[in-house]
Amino acid sequence: MAIARGDNWERELSEFNDWMVQHHLTPTWAYYAALVSKEPNVAYGPYLWKADMLGSVIKRAGELVDLARGGERRSFEVVNPDLRHIHGTTHTIGAALQLVQPGEVAPPHRHLANAIRFIVKGKGSFTAVQGERLYMEERDLILTPSWMWHEHGNETKDPIVWVDALDYPLMNHLQLSFFEPGGNQAEIGSRPVGFTANRIGYARPAWASYPEDIPLVTYKWSQVWAGMTALRGDAGSPYDGILFEYVNPMKGGGPVLPTIGCYAQLLRPGEHTKAHRHTASAIHYVLEGAGHSIIGGKRFDWGPGDFFMIPPWAWHEHVNPATQDAVFFVLSDKPVMDSLRVWREEPYANGGHQRVTETFTPMKWQ
Amino acid sequence: MAIARGDNWERELSEFNDWMVQHHLTPTWAYYAALVSKEPNVAYGPYLWKADMLGSVIKRAGELVDLARGGERRSFEVVNPDLRHIHGTTHTIGAALQLVQPGEVAPPHRHLANAIRFIVKGKGSFTAVQGERLYMEERDLILTPSWMWHEHGNETKDPIVWVDALDYPLMNHLQLSFFEPGGNQAEIGSRPVGFTANRIGYARPAWASYPEDIPLVTYKWSQVWAGMTALRGDAGSPYDGILFEYVNPMKGGGPVLPTIGCYAQLLRPGEHTKAHRHTASAIHYVLEGAGHSIIGGKRFDWGPGDFFMIPPWAWHEHVNPATQDAVFFVLSDKPVMDSLRVWREEPYANGGHQRVTETFTPMKWQ
Amino acid sequence: MAIARGDNWERELSEFNDWMVQHHLTPTWAYYAALVSKEPNVAYGPYLWKADMLGSVIKRAGELVDLARGGERRSFEVVNPDLRHIHGTTHTIGAALQLVQPGEVAPPHRHLANAIRFIVKGKGSFTAVQGERLYMEERDLILTPSWMWHEHGNETKDPIVWVDALDYPLMNHLQLSFFEPGGNQAEIGSRPVGFTANRIGYARPAWASYPEDIPLVTYKWSQVWAGMTALRGDAGSPYDGILFEYVNPMKGGGPVLPTIGCYAQLLRPGEHTKAHRHTASAIHYVLEGAGHSIIGGKRFDWGPGDFFMIPPWAWHEHVNPATQDAVFFVLSDKPVMDSLRVWREEPYANGGHQRVTETFTPMKWQ
Amino acid sequence: MAIARGDNWERELSEFNDWMVQHHLTPTWAYYAALVSKEPNVAYGPYLWKADMLGSVIKRAGELVDLARGGERRSFEVVNPDLRHIHGTTHTIGAALQLVQPGEVAPPHRHLANAIRFIVKGKGSFTAVQGERLYMEERDLILTPSWMWHEHGNETKDPIVWVDALDYPLMNHLQLSFFEPGGNQAEIGSRPVGFTANRIGYARPAWASYPEDIPLVTYKWSQVWAGMTALRGDAGSPYDGILFEYVNPMKGGGPVLPTIGCYAQLLRPGEHTKAHRHTASAIHYVLEGAGHSIIGGKRFDWGPGDFFMIPPWAWHEHVNPATQDAVFFVLSDKPVMDSLRVWREEPYANGGHQRVTETFTPMKWQ
Repeated sequence: MAIARGDNWERELSEFNDWMVQHHLTPTWAYYAALVSKEPNVAYGPYLWKADMLGSVIKRAGELVDLARGGERRSFEVVNPDLRHIHGTTHTIGAALQLVQPGEVAPPHRHLANAIRFIVKGKGSFTAVQGERLYMEERDLILTPSWMWHEHGNETKDPIVWVDALDYPLMNHLQLSFFEPGGNQAEIGSRPVGFTANRIGYARPAWASYPEDIPLVTYKWSQVWAGMTALRGDAGSPYDGILFEYVNPMKGGGPVLPTIGCYAQLLRPGEHTKAHRHTASAIHYVLEGAGHSIIGGKRFDWGPGDFFMIPPWAWHEHVNPATQDAVFFVLSDKPVMDSLRVWREEPYANGGHQRVTETFTPMKWQ
Repeated sequence: MAIARGDNWERELSEFNDWMVQHHLTPTWAYYAALVSKEPNVAYGPYLWKADMLGSVIKRAGELVDLARGGERRSFEVVNPDLRHIHGTTHTIGAALQLVQPGEVAPPHRHLANAIRFIVKGKGSFTAVQGERLYMEERDLILTPSWMWHEHGNETKDPIVWVDALDYPLMNHLQLSFFEPGGNQAEIGSRPVGFTANRIGYARPAWASYPEDIPLVTYKWSQVWAGMTALRGDAGSPYDGILFEYVNPMKGGGPVLPTIGCYAQLLRPGEHTKAHRHTASAIHYVLEGAGHSIIGGKRFDWGPGDFFMIPPWAWHEHVNPATQDAVFFVLSDKPVMDSLRVWREEPYANGGHQRVTETFTPMKWQ
Repeated sequence: MAIARGDNWERELSEFNDWMVQHHLTPTWAYYAALVSKEPNVAYGPYLWKADMLGSVIKRAGELVDLARGGERRSFEVVNPDLRHIHGTTHTIGAALQLVQPGEVAPPHRHLANAIRFIVKGKGSFTAVQGERLYMEERDLILTPSWMWHEHGNETKDPIVWVDALDYPLMNHLQLSFFEPGGNQAEIGSRPVGFTANRIGYARPAWASYPEDIPLVTYKWSQVWAGMTALRGDAGSPYDGILFEYVNPMKGGGPVLPTIGCYAQLLRPGEHTKAHRHTASAIHYVLEGAGHSIIGGKRFDWGPGDFFMIPPWAWHEHVNPATQDAVFFVLSDKPVMDSLRVWREEPYANGGHQRVTETFTPMKWQ
Repeated sequence: MAIARGDNWERELSEFNDWMVQHHLTPTWAYYAALVSKEPNVAYGPYLWKADMLGSVIKRAGELVDLARGGERRSFEVVNPDLRHIHGTTHTIGAALQLVQPGEVAPPHRHLANAIRFIVKGKGSFTAVQGERLYMEERDLILTPSWMWHEHGNETKDPIVWVDALDYPLMNHLQLSFFEPGGNQAEIGSRPVGFTANRIGYARPAWASYPEDIPLVTYKWSQVWAGMTALRGDAGSPYDGILFEYVNPMKGGGPVLPTIGCYAQLLRPGEHTKAHRHTASAIHYVLEGAGHSIIGGKRFDWGPGDFFMIPPWAWHEHVNPATQDAVFFVLSDKPVMDSLRVWREEPYANGGHQRVTETFTPMKWQ
């Protein structure tokens, strides 16, 4: 078993390594750093999109995009510059703004991707999920969970704008893109308005279980906000202030979807949260207020209607210097990290606050 | 090993058996029937208490019972004649009516027994549970779960009547009667009105869990009834019509208490349910309507304000012959049977209906 | 609303109370103490049965009891003197010793009661559960869970003695005595030896789940004891020494039966545990060693083959003064307390040890 | 709201689309097909690596790779040609062969990636997990779950070869590569041999829970194979024959790791399974037998020591034409699909068998 390692050893090993790669084998000894790293080399940075640009795009899309002439949706994703190849806002979630003109209807369909819808402007439109129409007002949330039939329509005289978010970046990576158009009304079923609410309250039919395990209801902002304001005197989270998580009451709590967590976040006047980092990524849509967040030492100034996102394992803290509330609607892939048991979180040392080394300059509409 | 069994064998065995009993041993061969039976030899029968008698007792108790002069509660249990020794309505649950006069207050206390409270008359009184005041209107339900502090008061100008139900018959049999008076306000804590509701809605504080695992809220009748009436066109349960179970949303469903299940039951005009029997016992309080139930072949006529109960493993069916709804509030020990995995249920053969062989004659106030 | 309470008030109230009782109503104000107590008034005390008496009874039963001439089982319960009316060792569990002569067979049957079997003497007999034969050696445990078919036989040339324990005292109180003889072999099914073991190991058939949720296997003493002795250097439980609980691996742990917990307990030479009390009752069968337990201030001396039991909420501690191990097989109703969420436990103050005020004198065979 | 769409409309829309992309917005109407597809456009195909090439590489690596002169491990991944950029055998799992020479030791470390180890050749080496040494023989399996300390050593006189599999392709995509070297023995703890086995058997210490929720034991092949052969007369899975899944008994079953499922698979002589496809990917290591699998219409011939893999949503069936058993050790990412609730499976129509349109030609060592 004596091994002859002469002067040629390094060259022989190098040739062997090359040969292996050509034969679809990776020599761990040569590629160890590519397989594992001490901490994540996160493939993308933070980013922010300003409301004025987004609003101009919505307006222009309203003029130019004619669903009758092609184009499934009058929606557009906010895409991280580093994730352009997967059209992702983060590596797991794509968030979009969608404009639905009066009278427009989307036919029923379903996809394996999970999705949520959060109303930004307008009221009275509906999304039907599994055949049940859910009517939505501003800041209401509805879910269209994986493989559940859904369709929508705007029966009002005013345009509707909502945030759509899907986990297609994750699903596509997992080779899981399934889509089915649903012409067959019988297959979709038809449930009366209130079907779900009448079955999942504090008292429930004893003779039949509700057929879904996620509640197909409108999560009313009025109810969420009532809880948040009632608890505004509480210490809250040191990292997030008054952070409420939308939950699944069919399971006694927990995230609304297996892959997407939804939150409403209140930064009280003058609040400056402590910095931390964690293995989840997050997308913030600003509902109210003006302030800034420091992400990886870089300052991002935000105001109403802006989108900004935070990559995994990036230090981040939020500042509301104003005398009025700052309120976000937030999306996160924390449920994935929890399911796969890889949630990790770390507080920032040094008093909890980063030094700002740079300020983000947003792109503008010209 | 040959055994000499002469003419004396039977006598010898009999003497041996007696000797064993004296020595605190039970010879199974002699007492097998006492240990096990093919079907339960249920120790008590069905019973019914009429509203007029109950109302007269409430009135008289209001005149005679002076809490200042002794007597913890102006309440009285409806007690099965066969269960007088344990003061039980069934072998597991004791149901009572309680009258709280204007201005009366019960000091805080807790017990290992689980309890519920269902308002029969009056509104505006409160029960505080774990220091949080819950205000109640007619037909609202509140829970005072095992070992949770509770107190109550009537701040209105009118008397309040409610149904109180506890599992003390079961708890006492299990040697579990614990009681603690609670003078120490600090120990009880003091939670503002809305403490629970603001923490257990469809969105919840992400930084802190609600400290209980049973929701300390008022289960509003208006919400329960809205669901029931919306589903009145449904087939419902063949045995119980439109039967709604009060659930624990902190656990995604399931019974409100580990030992007591609560139900609201609607028999639609003309509805005659099929008979079945099961291992749980049940107590019915009639809210509306007039009809009868057939329990073990015996007919029990009921009207508003009556109490009646059904023993375990007794055949029973319900008849609402009228043109208006019959509505019950129902208590059951089914959660115990489910936890111990001994729930059994059997439909009645012969077309599902018993032959009535007897009619129950209720006792009267004289 | 002015109430006339003249000189007759006390008499009137008393008459009213009596009248209520006659009408099957319990006036809480008069019977409060019967409904609730500060701490349990436990209805029975501790007790102990000596091995020599039990052995003599087994011997005599072997001579006198002829299953062919009537008598379902050659077994006898050890019955608490205060629980004679329910034939219970405690209020929830009845423990018995059973002698099975060579060649004897018990036909298949099932009951709603849960049961366990622990071999005291002999090997090679079998109990078939759900049609699968489980062979048993000394100190092995098998389960016959609620409503599962079981039968047994002794195919060896030697008598077998085992401890049988059932929850019939609890089941009977809950009105749950169901029994079914099983002549129909097809209904029972026939599973080969090893049916269970081959399906519930560390790797399991991916195409079909094991049909039970409790493992129908022989819990081998050799495996249990290996774990216990390996951990004998551990501190163990301050109240129970090296206490191992038999668990249900189909559920990832937890009690073997919904109503009966099984334990193996080792008191190391010189070990004197601290006293505590709890809401569960327990039955101890002494396998090895000689020592005593102090229960409610009373000393109970035990040796191999003795049975003794501890009521709920009784202070108890164990002493092994010898230079060899003391080993118990223990039964408890703790699973019931856990399911119903009424488990409570309290350490004894005053250094953890009771003062012995009395010594128990066991009954003898004469 | 009339929109002027002149002859320039198409050009204007096109310019708008381009402008959006430059501003980090994706116009859904133009990129819909990139976001969603009717069925997955799976990014990689099936592949197979022959034992003779793998064996030659092991031999040569044994000669050339000197751990003392750099290179963390003498292991090499089998890498799908389409997944070279992520060094993955599939998109979620990387499988490798590792050679450990006599006397070699790997120092303790941990990573967020989950891993397994399956012995191919040699016995007597150990892997220590959380400080407990687990000794392994051929075909035994051990787990090194996420973030648990592990190290290994070969104290024998013979080289050891094992299959290592990690979920680093998934973890890296999720931005979750964490690694920590573990010099600190105190931090790692030191558990005696048998620590786990003595705590997680059919009886467990009642005073302390086992500190992990995944059992750190050696999954013995002898026990797995005993179950499989006992059930070889069973129908088994129509798609996989006698397929056993390694489970987590701490959870009552379910996958051994949150991201990697492990299986042992037996194709009986003459067995030809039906084709199906599903959303999980799989990696097969052939232990015994010779036959072929048809994956996406392509025939892959395999024998002992070969690796082959099946992409998600590819039709596949297995054929064992021989008179002896074919046995695989199989890895799958099904647990991820189950956790995220996106497991889907479809049987192949047309009698269950694909038409072979192509035969795979493996690469050779030259």
